[in-house]
Amino acid sequence: MFQSFTVTSTPEHGAARVAALRATFDNRGIDAVLVPRADEYQGEYVPASAERLSWLTGFTGSAGMALILRDKALVFVDGRYVTQLAEQVDPAVFTGADLVGEPPHLWIERHGAKGLRLGIDPWLHTGAEVRKLEKALKAIGGELVVLKDNPLDPLWSDRPDAPLGRVRLQPNERAGRLATDKIAMIAETAVKAGAAAVLLTDPSSIAWTFNLRGADVPHTPHPLARGLIHADGTAEIFLDKRKTGIEEEAYLTQMARIAPPSDFEERVSALAASGVTLMIDPDQAPFAIAERIRRDGGTVLEADDPARLPRAIKNEAELDGTTRAHLQDGAAMVEFLAWLDSRQPGSVTEIAAAKELESIRCRVGERLQNPLRDISFDTIVGAGAHGAVIHYRVTEETDQPLAEGSLFLVDSGGQYVNGTTDITRTVAIGSVGAEEKRFFTLVLKGMIAISTARFPKGTRGVDLDPLARIALWKAGADYAHGTGHGVGSYLSVHEGPQRISRAAMQELLPGMILSNEPGYYRPGAFGIRIENLIHVLPADAIEGGDAPMLGFKTLTFCPIDRRLIVTDLLTDEERRWIDAYHAETRETLAPLIEVEEVKAWLEAATQPL
Amino acid sequence: MFQSFTVTSTPEHGAARVAALRATFDNRGIDAVLVPRADEYQGEYVPASAERLSWLTGFTGSAGMALILRDKALVFVDGRYVTQLAEQVDPAVFTGADLVGEPPHLWIERHGAKGLRLGIDPWLHTGAEVRKLEKALKAIGGELVVLKDNPLDPLWSDRPDAPLGRVRLQPNERAGRLATDKIAMIAETAVKAGAAAVLLTDPSSIAWTFNLRGADVPHTPHPLARGLIHADGTAEIFLDKRKTGIEEEAYLTQMARIAPPSDFEERVSALAASGVTLMIDPDQAPFAIAERIRRDGGTVLEADDPARLPRAIKNEAELDGTTRAHLQDGAAMVEFLAWLDSRQPGSVTEIAAAKELESIRCRVGERLQNPLRDISFDTIVGAGAHGAVIHYRVTEETDQPLAEGSLFLVDSGGQYVNGTTDITRTVAIGSVGAEEKRFFTLVLKGMIAISTARFPKGTRGVDLDPLARIALWKAGADYAHGTGHGVGSYLSVHEGPQRISRAAMQELLPGMILSNEPGYYRPGAFGIRIENLIHVLPADAIEGGDAPMLGFKTLTFCPIDRRLIVTDLLTDEERRWIDAYHAETRETLAPLIEVEEVKAWLEAATQPL
Repeated sequence: MFQSFTVTSTPEHGAARVAALRATFDNRGIDAVLVPRADEYQGEYVPASAERLSWLTGFTGSAGMALILRDKALVFVDGRYVTQLAEQVDPAVFTGADLVGEPPHLWIERHGAKGLRLGIDPWLHTGAEVRKLEKALKAIGGELVVLKDNPLDPLWSDRPDAPLGRVRLQPNERAGRLATDKIAMIAETAVKAGAAAVLLTDPSSIAWTFNLRGADVPHTPHPLARGLIHADGTAEIFLDKRKTGIEEEAYLTQMARIAPPSDFEERVSALAASGVTLMIDPDQAPFAIAERIRRDGGTVLEADDPARLPRAIKNEAELDGTTRAHLQDGAAMVEFLAWLDSRQPGSVTEIAAAKELESIRCRVGERLQNPLRDISFDTIVGAGAHGAVIHYRVTEETDQPLAEGSLFLVDSGGQYVNGTTDITRTVAIGSVGAEEKRFFTLVLKGMIAISTARFPKGTRGVDLDPLARIALWKAGADYAHGTGHGVGSYLSVHEGPQRISRAAMQELLPGMILSNEPGYYRPGAFGIRIENLIHVLPADAIEGGDAPMLGFKTLTFCPIDRRLIVTDLLTDEERRWIDAYHAETRETLAPLIEVEEVKAWLEAATQPL
Repeated sequence: MFQSFTVTSTPEHGAARVAALRATFDNRGIDAVLVPRADEYQGEYVPASAERLSWLTGFTGSAGMALILRDKALVFVDGRYVTQLAEQVDPAVFTGADLVGEPPHLWIERHGAKGLRLGIDPWLHTGAEVRKLEKALKAIGGELVVLKDNPLDPLWSDRPDAPLGRVRLQPNERAGRLATDKIAMIAETAVKAGAAAVLLTDPSSIAWTFNLRGADVPHTPHPLARGLIHADGTAEIFLDKRKTGIEEEAYLTQMARIAPPSDFEERVSALAASGVTLMIDPDQAPFAIAERIRRDGGTVLEADDPARLPRAIKNEAELDGTTRAHLQDGAAMVEFLAWLDSRQPGSVTEIAAAKELESIRCRVGERLQNPLRDISFDTIVGAGAHGAVIHYRVTEETDQPLAEGSLFLVDSGGQYVNGTTDITRTVAIGSVGAEEKRFFTLVLKGMIAISTARFPKGTRGVDLDPLARIALWKAGADYAHGTGHGVGSYLSVHEGPQRISRAAMQELLPGMILSNEPGYYRPGAFGIRIENLIHVLPADAIEGGDAPMLGFKTLTFCPIDRRLIVTDLLTDEERRWIDAYHAETRETLAPLIEVEEVKAWLEAATQPL
């Protein structure tokens, strides 16, 4: 299993560990220290060796930050983790704080003691974060103390080793563009910007640029590594050789000097000392890097990671691959939904459902000779009221049966070498009420509005987001999340810069993959979300039109529960879309399904409305 | 008539005037000078005494800027004025340039001679504009020379006097809030910001704050004046006393010191010399003011004009007034459209139509004892292909008959003491083609989408703009302007910060008035725009909903040409909206109409689809 349903938290060590940490304050000349959940790669997932927040506090959530003061220890979390925090940390030691409403820099500005000296490990914070902290400290006459090493690590005696996940090549038939070509493109960016080199600090950018995939962290197949692309086109990759085999090493050697990650700092220093300009992304790169460049005489040029936008624009090979991955994943989802429908209401629990889904994805992957490499994220299986908890993660303690008359929301995805999937379906368990069906249909209308949208060049995600909401708005409802996020190509399931939300100012360009996932959540009652992945492409010429348009092609095929659709609420166009979508689902998935009962289920589930 | 259809341009003076201007360069130590169309109040309209661009070049358009170099004289205009510029200036002297694609600061950066010394009159440029110019000049090693006086004015022998438009009070029954209360609110802003005073540099802010209206410029009833609101609640108004009568003077004296506009500079200097902080809006205030404050020892605090947002949020009295103004204006429009329908196709020209509309507005205003004070802007009357020219302004030279089988677009508005109107209708002249009808219906769908929208608190104009476009997008079409602009209360018909467009980041708040005017333009063929004014208000509670919503109430009532609506393209909800809108139009306007034939026309024009 890629997913675990048990949570091991160690609240009992909190008091001693915080005390040991505070005992180092005087020597370090600080009054406080920040312990973020992030590691030095700023990715969504961190390896066990970087789970410092959990080691110190017991809190195992995926986002958070501790602020350890002399007389107080705060753990900042967002709304979804308030309950979990209370269960996982020792209340005699830690106090909860609001990561969104009053994040650490705001807390410091409002409540910090005058003259506060705040220590940070500069590898765990981006330049953008440090700027906010410096501003807050300035307001209270305090000072930011950039620590030479991490203050927890000497205390963490049984710290796991850094991961050595096996690195594999992403061959050109799947990557669609040679690494040498990508390196040349990035070098060109450096030339244009007048920089001597670009520092690639995001492991997903390393993976994309060098056509590699890794296995260092859960769910995101990138290797923890850094890169340097010089203006002259030469490249360096800072990657532990224990992660590569002969083949990968031979491949990499042709285009880059391979050095251990521990050499990266010194290499940057040496470059900086020659007085050159180095380009880094202030929203991604650890502050330590910019600081070192400046200290050693170089000039920092802040700019977007040059691999970020090209990575988001998938080429034909990537789109072909992900199309196939989605069909395979859709076949697995169909098998899962058919299985679910064959069970009695109340006889399946959330965990049982999640386990069944993962094992079906594995089985289908083996059968189709394209194994499931990982799940894209921990499957969200929300029965009844749990469906209304947007980031619900089931554990043995919260597990519930899927009860008669309720909705069941399942949001999941698979990592395959040819693509990353992410799909949400909300299905009826037995016979459900009219209110659930009405809101399901309103959410569906929003999802169809995005699926069928046409839009001129220059349109940004912010310009499409309201199309997914207007049906709900007119019913006096809304949902408190964006409509869609970017998705990688056998990389992170959450990828920028493309997205569909009220903050999405990036122009949508052909080749970008996005999720399309409006929802509706009634706390304590039910949750609804319907999610397909889509990609941007030039739309077919429209008769009588005079402006070329872009549109979306749907990647995800899997029935949408017809039992929950109130046909009367749909326009003719929406109804035609659903029927056509189901017809295509039936035609494309049936050949991938073996079992007759499942085929029959698919046939029935995709009948016209 | 408030509108003139003749254009008096004097291209024959261009050569001599440019030569005279250049002859001053050496004495002033400059190589070039900028001559903007803007005056020192930065309003949409300028008085005759500030028409410097027209005096120098012959160009009379409403936006533009001349850059007079030693060997070149450029006139920057936007796309709508390219033809007009060619007709109005001497081609031997002036060259056209692109105000949008390559505005003066960009032109200077790309083509300016190394070391260029550019003179500007600091009263005619905002601080934000000067920053761009300085950056451009720095890039070419040039220098900005801030001139002590305007270099044209000494050459302009027959320059008209500054206007002395009569100032009138806007009584509390229409303004809905006492000036003393507004002054106290602005003083509070100064206190909170730690400023000694707020400088009000926008005449519309003076008008709103002091509950005055003026008549210095066409179409916008604000007085050209400045104000100072001190943190202690005292106020000063810099207004020529020749504009006020005894009543207005007695009123103003109770709340402010009245001083001549010519005292403003010295007063700001005196304040600055005491070392205080003064608050100004860098996007509105002339650069001269900020420069003077800094020079004389004061501190400039840049912030939004504190009257701008409150002015946009209309109170009950203002909304009641504008509601009544719109009914009166709707009655005039109905009389006009009935008249138009009674004429033979081909027998009316654009100018005849504009004249008739203005005289009907005057007549209805006299009859209803609420006279037309001005038109809100020059009426746009576009017959056939002229309808596709978004900012078309008819002249004797371009005037055309409204021909059989064509569309006629009329965009107009009135200034009444209780409100400002702005309405566009596109009507069929005789029997028009299917393509025109299809696009009319698509535009109408967008207009209805905005009219019927519901949206949560926090929604910005950018979040609604796409709702007006999606029907056109799906037909492969779009329109190259925003969907709506803010509208004042017997003030400017174009008011910020509220608007509906892809750049509209201002949250929509109850009380804001906006236009709702999607369109479609087929160059050389036809143009369509349908425009109502609407205002934001909390929506009625929606049954089954769980979030309070905002919505719009329509202010404009006037039939939408049913002959152009393809009913099959409408959803049931859209059709119901049109029928309800027409029923309300009939009920509310019929009592205001005298002539039986016009009543009968209204009755027929508002039948259900």
